[in-house]
Amino acid sequence: MVWCGSTEAHITAGKEHQTIEAFEKALKESSPNIAPSMIYTYAAIMEGVPYVNGAPNLSVELPCLIQLAEKRGVPIAGSDFKTGQTLMKTILAPGLKSRMLGISGWYSTNILGNRDGEVLQDPESFKSKEVSKLGVLESVLEPNRHPDLYGDLHHIVRINYYKPRGDNKEGWDNIDIFGWMGYPMQIKVNFLCRDSILAAPLVLDLAQFMDLAARSGFKGIQEWLGFYLKSPLVKQGLAPEHDLQVQKLKLENTLRYLGKEELINHLGLTYYGVDEADASRIGNE
Amino acid sequence: MVWCGSTEAHITAGKEHQTIEAFEKALKESSPNIAPSMIYTYAAIMEGVPYVNGAPNLSVELPCLIQLAEKRGVPIAGSDFKTGQTLMKTILAPGLKSRMLGISGWYSTNILGNRDGEVLQDPESFKSKEVSKLGVLESVLEPNRHPDLYGDLHHIVRINYYKPRGDNKEGWDNIDIFGWMGYPMQIKVNFLCRDSILAAPLVLDLAQFMDLAARSGFKGIQEWLGFYLKSPLVKQGLAPEHDLQVQKLKLENTLRYLGKEELINHLGLTYYGVDEADASRIGNE
Amino acid sequence: MVWCGSTEAHITAGKEHQTIEAFEKALKESSPNIAPSMIYTYAAIMEGVPYVNGAPNLSVELPCLIQLAEKRGVPIAGSDFKTGQTLMKTILAPGLKSRMLGISGWYSTNILGNRDGEVLQDPESFKSKEVSKLGVLESVLEPNRHPDLYGDLHHIVRINYYKPRGDNKEGWDNIDIFGWMGYPMQIKVNFLCRDSILAAPLVLDLAQFMDLAARSGFKGIQEWLGFYLKSPLVKQGLAPEHDLQVQKLKLENTLRYLGKEELINHLGLTYYGVDEADASRIGNE
Amino acid sequence: MVWCGSTEAHITAGKEHQTIEAFEKALKESSPNIAPSMIYTYAAIMEGVPYVNGAPNLSVELPCLIQLAEKRGVPIAGSDFKTGQTLMKTILAPGLKSRMLGISGWYSTNILGNRDGEVLQDPESFKSKEVSKLGVLESVLEPNRHPDLYGDLHHIVRINYYKPRGDNKEGWDNIDIFGWMGYPMQIKVNFLCRDSILAAPLVLDLAQFMDLAARSGFKGIQEWLGFYLKSPLVKQGLAPEHDLQVQKLKLENTLRYLGKEELINHLGLTYYGVDEADASRIGNE
Repeated sequence: MVWCGSTEAHITAGKEHQTIEAFEKALKESSPNIAPSMIYTYAAIMEGVPYVNGAPNLSVELPCLIQLAEKRGVPIAGSDFKTGQTLMKTILAPGLKSRMLGISGWYSTNILGNRDGEVLQDPESFKSKEVSKLGVLESVLEPNRHPDLYGDLHHIVRINYYKPRGDNKEGWDNIDIFGWMGYPMQIKVNFLCRDSILAAPLVLDLAQFMDLAARSGFKGIQEWLGFYLKSPLVKQGLAPEHDLQVQKLKLENTLRYLGKEELINHLGLTYYGVDEADASRIGNE
Repeated sequence: MVWCGSTEAHITAGKEHQTIEAFEKALKESSPNIAPSMIYTYAAIMEGVPYVNGAPNLSVELPCLIQLAEKRGVPIAGSDFKTGQTLMKTILAPGLKSRMLGISGWYSTNILGNRDGEVLQDPESFKSKEVSKLGVLESVLEPNRHPDLYGDLHHIVRINYYKPRGDNKEGWDNIDIFGWMGYPMQIKVNFLCRDSILAAPLVLDLAQFMDLAARSGFKGIQEWLGFYLKSPLVKQGLAPEHDLQVQKLKLENTLRYLGKEELINHLGLTYYGVDEADASRIGNE
Repeated sequence: MVWCGSTEAHITAGKEHQTIEAFEKALKESSPNIAPSMIYTYAAIMEGVPYVNGAPNLSVELPCLIQLAEKRGVPIAGSDFKTGQTLMKTILAPGLKSRMLGISGWYSTNILGNRDGEVLQDPESFKSKEVSKLGVLESVLEPNRHPDLYGDLHHIVRINYYKPRGDNKEGWDNIDIFGWMGYPMQIKVNFLCRDSILAAPLVLDLAQFMDLAARSGFKGIQEWLGFYLKSPLVKQGLAPEHDLQVQKLKLENTLRYLGKEELINHLGLTYYGVDEADASRIGNE
Repeated sequence: MVWCGSTEAHITAGKEHQTIEAFEKALKESSPNIAPSMIYTYAAIMEGVPYVNGAPNLSVELPCLIQLAEKRGVPIAGSDFKTGQTLMKTILAPGLKSRMLGISGWYSTNILGNRDGEVLQDPESFKSKEVSKLGVLESVLEPNRHPDLYGDLHHIVRINYYKPRGDNKEGWDNIDIFGWMGYPMQIKVNFLCRDSILAAPLVLDLAQFMDLAARSGFKGIQEWLGFYLKSPLVKQGLAPEHDLQVQKLKLENTLRYLGKEELINHLGLTYYGVDEADASRIGNE
């Protein structure tokens, strides 16, 4: 089951969401803190059906449902499909960072003209979306490890309902970077896209890979599918990986593992007259 | 030694460049086919000094000099620093490909206002630059493996001398992509940068890593430094890797290998209750 | 005197601003409804010094001060220098309209990083700025006269404080236009500018032309200087002209009139064998 | 008759085009210097049908045919419909000039994917198009009168066939401007349009106005219709007007003259207590 519903009203995880007993009690009492998507999640897990949350609201991301999934051996994943501007951010930011180019600011504005845009005009809905969108950059750039490069980054995300855009979406990003001696440079990205077209194939991939996970005995959170998600669900205390290429390598190597193929680390030492077998022994001894 | 000279006149590898004997003979006879940068390369290798070619013209990329470097155990690398638009291409193209987004066209135009720009007004100089720039995209996208997505890609690269830009450089890229059901979308990237600022740190990194390579006994072509180069020199018959993130992982894992640290493959199976040691045995058995 | 102060706190014209007696009484009582710029305006007019308001807040735009200026024969003008994005709008919109191209939407976003930007983060300050900026387009396009072309125009203006931009300002405009059969087309304008550089020459021009107005016996509102202003002050009941080229012709013909030169109407009938003197008689008879 | 054919092979006006006798002789001898469009023009004028050339090649722009049109009292106009990038240039450049903003460079690149684009890949065809496109800016900016502002303007126009664009056209313009103290600023314009949609209404307007011209007794070159044309045909020795808003005022005042209405000069002196009748007498005395 892949949840593709519109963003639900914002709910903060509370008492009802800590244990499965409390959840079931609230469910029976028709508590307003049990959102429709949570009921679907609960039903899916109880039936042994793998579940993915493609929206930003809380659905499977609750302590009680994560525990339930692990207990029942059901694969789960979430949240929020990674499609337009955030996809681009997790492509560009790791690239800039890999060259140690500093970033002093990233201004992102979006215009969209359908109901998604109207909903995000609501400050509360936008807040949850904004928080999710802002986190990506910090996670990729690690300002704590590189304070000189990313410690003073001014990151702004704006979303505006703009009727003429209709079902299409358009993003304009301005990125202020700096190189040696603090020399300032700029990158502007204008992305004219359509959410539904970018999201549809993710639904198909996730349906197939969740089925594979179930058949392979993978239980609970499927971190290897973070490639598809804006805010990947991870075990408590762990930081999610947002770098698209790292996510892809993780996805591919997991598939290689399942297919009993050799994992790829892109070493290729034979080049320099070194015995590759030496390399693969390192760290395994 | 890191060659940072201006692009030299175009020379095609000929008889003088096949064996070291022929090269030395042509050198003594002051043959016009021996470019200044080749003399520097020869001198560097004979002195046991590692050599990197940061320009697009032939310098160390000659059969005779590659053999000489291997024979004398001297690390070499080339060619052409990867800085502005091509850097961006090897960041964006793998990202788009990782989501299997088709690309029907990529139009790149550059304006720059210094001597580099004036030199590239010359059709011959531009041709060699263009060939090198066009190759990157094909190598990353593999149209032979994905003809539906990249088999009909119209790729254009233009460079114009434009005086007001001075020492700065500006690129404008239009990328026509398509998603499910062939739905067309567009990405525009405007990059306002400065070549010298982007290139300088590469020179420092390459100087240090080439020294490390020499001290580590790595001989001949240093393919692991392709991360820094637009057209990485590889062994005859092999295809160069252009994907920036793959190049970075290769660089990092090579450093890990030299530091006797565990290589990274981003698997992380402990998540799903699998014994990670199982995974690392696969492929090594 | 040309007022170049920062935007003052928003004040709505009230009782104190209707007659000069009420204004002087409020002034003596240090009423909070008398802003600093109003005191300067009052002093200027009383001294017979022409006054221009370059800021968006109310200063000379009060019934009492307009009357005072007329009574004392002092030229006045305002308000808000027309420099960056609005300048561009009054260049582009008349051009598009002259070809009867429809406009379904105009999305304008601005980023600036100095105190002007911080002030406009305040919703109240932004509101007055937004109203002034939105009005320009409606005045130029006349949606009442062309409902099919401009009656359903979605116009959005956003201003964001963005630290890395510093004293510079950057605008990104997306304009959705449509031609025959409603065919949609798009224009994007990215303007990288600096307010102070664009505004400074306006101050000089206005100082000189206001002096000329005074010496020529022009009293009260100087509508011919609307060329320089975002929200030109006009006589009650009249609509301001925003089209930059019409404003320029008005400015130039006023100077021609003062210099006793022939006014220009760009007719040029001699072309077709018509006696030009015939034309100039029309409408004057 | 409004000529809308594709750009013909480039022909320079020669002996055959100087007198109507020479033209008719060459016509009978099927000279290769008589292009198809010239034959249509000749036929139209002989039949008393007004003729407009909407293409950049020589058609009515020949001494012999201009004389023939005058002799027979037939209105003619040309050449090349002003639609996309050049339309934008004649909107923007006058606007920037009206504020005396200097321009150090204007780089224009176009991508289009239909036969028009393929034809312009031919260096000869492109040359004539380029010359016509380059002239517009010089005519508007008058570098001879303003050498400090426009005397060192680097103007580049590039057109590229780019298959994915199909029947649509896309322009990207970079404009380097400078303000006080030579402070550099930049404007980028990205225009996504479609030539046929922009051109079609011009054909209709021209057909109607040429009919009006004929009925009003206007003979020969109709300079007042330059509003619609990239390279307006003018009497020998005169410079064409390219400023779109001046062209529009000329068009409108000509229509007012024909309708016996008062001409507009945007003076409006009643504002300052001046008798407007005084103004209209100036220059007419």
